[in-house]
Amino acid sequence: MYYYQALQRNATMFGDDVGTSFGERERTWKEVELRVAKLAGALVEQGVEQKNHVAILAMNSDRYFEYYNAIPWIGGVVVPLNIRWSLKENIYSLENSESSVLFVDDAFLEMGKELAKQCEKIQLIIYMGEGETPENMLNYEQLIDNASALAPVKNDYNNLAGIFYTGGTTGFPKGVMLSHTNLWSSSIIVTAEIGLNVAGERYLHAAPMFHLADVGISYATVIGGLCQVFVPYFDANSVIEIIEQKKVNHVLLVPTMVTMMLATPTLSDANFSSLKHIIYGASPMPEGTLIAAMEKMSGVKFIQAYGQSELSPVISILPAKYHVLEGAYAGKLRSAGRAGYCLRVEIRDENGTVLPTGKVGEIVASGPNTMLGYWKSIEQTAATLIDGWVLTGDAGYMDEDGFIFLVDRLKDMIVTGGENVFSIEVENALSHHSAIQESVVLGIPSKKWGESVHAIIRLNEGQEITDEEIRSHCREYIASYKIPHSIEIRIEPFPITGAGKIMKNELRAPYWINKTRAIN
Amino acid sequence: MYYYQALQRNATMFGDDVGTSFGERERTWKEVELRVAKLAGALVEQGVEQKNHVAILAMNSDRYFEYYNAIPWIGGVVVPLNIRWSLKENIYSLENSESSVLFVDDAFLEMGKELAKQCEKIQLIIYMGEGETPENMLNYEQLIDNASALAPVKNDYNNLAGIFYTGGTTGFPKGVMLSHTNLWSSSIIVTAEIGLNVAGERYLHAAPMFHLADVGISYATVIGGLCQVFVPYFDANSVIEIIEQKKVNHVLLVPTMVTMMLATPTLSDANFSSLKHIIYGASPMPEGTLIAAMEKMSGVKFIQAYGQSELSPVISILPAKYHVLEGAYAGKLRSAGRAGYCLRVEIRDENGTVLPTGKVGEIVASGPNTMLGYWKSIEQTAATLIDGWVLTGDAGYMDEDGFIFLVDRLKDMIVTGGENVFSIEVENALSHHSAIQESVVLGIPSKKWGESVHAIIRLNEGQEITDEEIRSHCREYIASYKIPHSIEIRIEPFPITGAGKIMKNELRAPYWINKTRAIN
Repeated sequence: MYYYQALQRNATMFGDDVGTSFGERERTWKEVELRVAKLAGALVEQGVEQKNHVAILAMNSDRYFEYYNAIPWIGGVVVPLNIRWSLKENIYSLENSESSVLFVDDAFLEMGKELAKQCEKIQLIIYMGEGETPENMLNYEQLIDNASALAPVKNDYNNLAGIFYTGGTTGFPKGVMLSHTNLWSSSIIVTAEIGLNVAGERYLHAAPMFHLADVGISYATVIGGLCQVFVPYFDANSVIEIIEQKKVNHVLLVPTMVTMMLATPTLSDANFSSLKHIIYGASPMPEGTLIAAMEKMSGVKFIQAYGQSELSPVISILPAKYHVLEGAYAGKLRSAGRAGYCLRVEIRDENGTVLPTGKVGEIVASGPNTMLGYWKSIEQTAATLIDGWVLTGDAGYMDEDGFIFLVDRLKDMIVTGGENVFSIEVENALSHHSAIQESVVLGIPSKKWGESVHAIIRLNEGQEITDEEIRSHCREYIASYKIPHSIEIRIEPFPITGAGKIMKNELRAPYWINKTRAIN
Repeated sequence: MYYYQALQRNATMFGDDVGTSFGERERTWKEVELRVAKLAGALVEQGVEQKNHVAILAMNSDRYFEYYNAIPWIGGVVVPLNIRWSLKENIYSLENSESSVLFVDDAFLEMGKELAKQCEKIQLIIYMGEGETPENMLNYEQLIDNASALAPVKNDYNNLAGIFYTGGTTGFPKGVMLSHTNLWSSSIIVTAEIGLNVAGERYLHAAPMFHLADVGISYATVIGGLCQVFVPYFDANSVIEIIEQKKVNHVLLVPTMVTMMLATPTLSDANFSSLKHIIYGASPMPEGTLIAAMEKMSGVKFIQAYGQSELSPVISILPAKYHVLEGAYAGKLRSAGRAGYCLRVEIRDENGTVLPTGKVGEIVASGPNTMLGYWKSIEQTAATLIDGWVLTGDAGYMDEDGFIFLVDRLKDMIVTGGENVFSIEVENALSHHSAIQESVVLGIPSKKWGESVHAIIRLNEGQEITDEEIRSHCREYIASYKIPHSIEIRIEPFPITGAGKIMKNELRAPYWINKTRAIN
């Protein structure tokens, strides 16, 4: 279905209930539907046509949600830009995506002006902010005020719905092309398996809305009739406050956000009685962090969703009941769960042969949520999308019950003395130490071993630890060749992507200047 | 997704659990997967090719389920034939569908032989029975024994998956063309809303497997990992017995089946402790019958699924919680529920204008489950499928909460003295009388009124009733002009379609010989 059809369904069924809540601003589903129909009307009046690409560079807000509905309403293509990107990266993706319209908010106003100057294709800039509308831009609210409501434009579910840029830490980002069916199928399996379908409950957009992790889970909750609550960006204190104040029931967090919340003193006193689910995903959650979170927020159920943009994004789900350390459902906590209802997942070797239970290989997946391909990149598409299967680039294995255990990004694997060490496994071991807040484990050059295991560690406030203590702690969890050979304590936060993933590439790069890794 | 991908997922996750159970024969998901892969291999060895149309004429069985998986496995198109059809109708649909292969079981062996003679296009007949294989047929089990397992053939989710014949009581049946996405999307919304997803629970195929009502609900349960239990055909006694014996958890029944179960003495003593849900649909359930069923099977939750083949088939769902006579959820029992998660539903007048809340018009629906069209019938497609919306031919209205209230098939509406009387409303009133087992209300010719309201009634065993008693009972429920003008008590069962719908056309026809109805 089209994204906006879930909104329409809610307007029909729960029209007078609150649909969006942003700060003091609350609107009913009927109001949101009308605003979207008018925004769509305004865009068409401005000459925006079906199949036009419409970009957005903004913090989270109710208007961002309206954008996601209005663009498919006119048969356009959404192009949500990464809020962490440099000017250069934004220019690249605007030009690469051939976007002719840009939505921009106050946080990105200066960037928007610069993009307007440098990107010739951009013909229309819509200012979503609260201040005075800059020259050469149109005001979002004025557009809606002056427009007539438009009926949705006839379209096809298999048409391109959006281009979602991914990667970009090395080389330029790739534009993942997703259809309406792609986006819908990924979300409905979340609704189906997790049951985020109690109309009137509240979902908080805490992760950035440009990113598919939030798009996928929130769409599942829109389908289920849930009120959409927004914070402009993730900040542990304000997210804790909003959950309390607005009685949020469900939130998607990436692991670094969970780490930050655990390090926030106000968490202990927070009233999280409304909070039913924390859905986490987008990068692997270290086991120690997960257990600490489960202990500190004991009334909350945790659900893992593993995926990537190329799968719109959900691949597998680990339901709440497996988040236990004892009993019949124990033993799956470190897994990424099982294939979603619409998917087939296999583990394959480098020749494409399906591997048996327990063997580590590349995780590949296929379903109605399989991307259409990479935008304007036949080569990259051919390398990733083979006969309808996406090669995820993740290494993992499957157990006898079909649970997927991620061991590493293929590119992050460390080859030391002929042995494979999976960085996630070492990070997991480190995560169990109470002094350690977070860690990154990398392969760095070693004359003797090819690569050696290097750990960069951030400690919890006021903690100290010796290398020998760390190594002796690790010995309880992992084999000796996996134990960090060199250790570095760091104070400053790790660099993270717009989606909150730690940028391992960037942390690894300094060690490899003028050297070539075997895995690349 | 393809139908068989749900089977594959189950084989991966619950491979050693029982997947199919038919009589004494039980097979694990892994066994079923292997059999399907081998059946697929056998078909290809026999020259069956991608896009070939493969018909089946059989009672319910585990082999029927394997057929539904093996045909998409090779990229073929399923053509399930109606088990109630005459030779003539079967010949029509085999020829019309251009089927080249026919699966046939013991119940339809003679019919199969006749079809082989008369349908030149049929090149291969596969005998699914237990007896000796007739000349010119191939044995189902031998084919599997001798074949090699085949990998699924590459295909496209939007390709034709099946032709499902519908109607046919007047004129020839229409072949509804459904894609893989159509079938999948209808089913996943059932999984999502009803949550038939506790792996290992048991679904009973009591309704005929050729019909989309069973296909749709059972596919939802296959997605959810539920064991599939089969009875060859619906018989109230044996269904009651099987539910007890095999500890069935969920079953789809059409209203006439519920009526028959209520009239079965063994129901009172049956142990239905395993039975969680009766899903009912395919035709309107009279309210009195539903309430009687809720009382007699008080431990069971009832769920309504309203739909039609053209929507693959689910349009709306009335969840269990609305099956109450008191409390916050009361007042919706007579409704068909609200639009499924993947659908938009509107009520339109004869000009296509959307009607407001409470106004009766034609129910129209649109979603990823909207059929591709009618097979080889551009005209009928153009009359039914408009801009992606299906005109259902059902009259109804929507309340302020988006609940759909069906009032009648447009063709069954009675126009008497300028007033519209909806036959369902009168049947509902009659259903509340304890002496009445079931009824059919029809418009018959009247010189004075154009049409007059005629009721044909079947009584419960040992009951008697006068026309005046019936009319006085009806007066409690409906306006005087809706009360049956003429009443007929009938002993013999009503004629029903293969799907268990009462054939109103056939009951009405004798009154209209040489006369023309205003509605047709």
